[in-house]
Amino acid sequence: MKLLEDRIRKDGVVKEGNILKVDSFLNHQMDVDLFNAMGEEFRRLFAERPVNKILTIEASGIGIAVIAAQHFHVPVVFAKKAQSVNLDGEMYTTKIESFTHKRTYDVIVSKKFLSSDDHILVIDDFLANGCAVNGLIDLIRSAGATVEGVGIAIEKGFQTGGNLIRSKGIRVESLAIIDSMDAKTGEIEFRKPAAAGS
Amino acid sequence: MKLLEDRIRKDGVVKEGNILKVDSFLNHQMDVDLFNAMGEEFRRLFAERPVNKILTIEASGIGIAVIAAQHFHVPVVFAKKAQSVNLDGEMYTTKIESFTHKRTYDVIVSKKFLSSDDHILVIDDFLANGCAVNGLIDLIRSAGATVEGVGIAIEKGFQTGGNLIRSKGIRVESLAIIDSMDAKTGEIEFRKPAAAGS
Repeated sequence: MKLLEDRIRKDGVVKEGNILKVDSFLNHQMDVDLFNAMGEEFRRLFAERPVNKILTIEASGIGIAVIAAQHFHVPVVFAKKAQSVNLDGEMYTTKIESFTHKRTYDVIVSKKFLSSDDHILVIDDFLANGCAVNGLIDLIRSAGATVEGVGIAIEKGFQTGGNLIRSKGIRVESLAIIDSMDAKTGEIEFRKPAAAGS
Repeated sequence: MKLLEDRIRKDGVVKEGNILKVDSFLNHQMDVDLFNAMGEEFRRLFAERPVNKILTIEASGIGIAVIAAQHFHVPVVFAKKAQSVNLDGEMYTTKIESFTHKRTYDVIVSKKFLSSDDHILVIDDFLANGCAVNGLIDLIRSAGATVEGVGIAIEKGFQTGGNLIRSKGIRVESLAIIDSMDAKTGEIEFRKPAAAGS
């Protein structure tokens, strides 16, 4: 998606250790107009899928998912990290390893909000090693629900997550796929759109 | 706001310990159409304020804030709980006590996204003892920015947070103010709209 790639080139900052900082528009400060364009594109890409719910994970997936949901006219459920005393006992759980925070989280969704009738689109801001998305797919399958696809803002194409999930037969649509980036020059190379589909 | 009050009566569940569960539409599963009506109402209530940014806190404030931002045409910044290694060194910090999770969080906002030129509307899902909102106000004042107001979905009017913040001269608009609720009968009493303003 050219709009997002242009924005990443303009405002993204490449750091050592394959870190891409996009906190000025994607996951700390959030550009809602950009999110709307992304939501519209997700809708176009998954137009023929019978999505009745969007699943994301706190925190930085929520903004993108909620705006995208307007284009699908469905509710959003966000998976929660660690247990809250406000949640009832009945929940699906999985574990997700976070490389950013260097720890493992318990991730939960109430059983009330995922059922075998559900057709779920997973949305998240980043796909790198795929731990978060795999955890969400695990939760969906625990409920016997159907994974209709995965919509990602930025995929680090040089990490294994995207291929791993696609190899399971799940459709993954990433609006920008980075093939390489260089912390010294700040250069970012995006995958050509022809290969960006699932 | 009648739409929200009706929804709380219909789908909210009162639990012992003054807990109101609204996780089927507000803070686990999220009803985006309802959020849009709430965002429109926030815009009406703060129409004359020169808001240029919305500040919320992860995780359950983000959905409401992002949808509301569409009505203000401004970006959203969310304060983060605990430090992420992906954040640069330069940040405003405060501490927020969470009664739900029975712990104290360090809460941060990058200095890049709050400045003395900013006119901030704070948005959150709940106002009870006011710890979260007070923490956000603290961050805004650290930056020398202006607090234009506080927009809350549900205020527990029988707790002290709302009065505390209003007593500082800050305008607080809560779309539903609960004066009392009863876990045995499930009954919820809302404050009459005349008294609901700041």
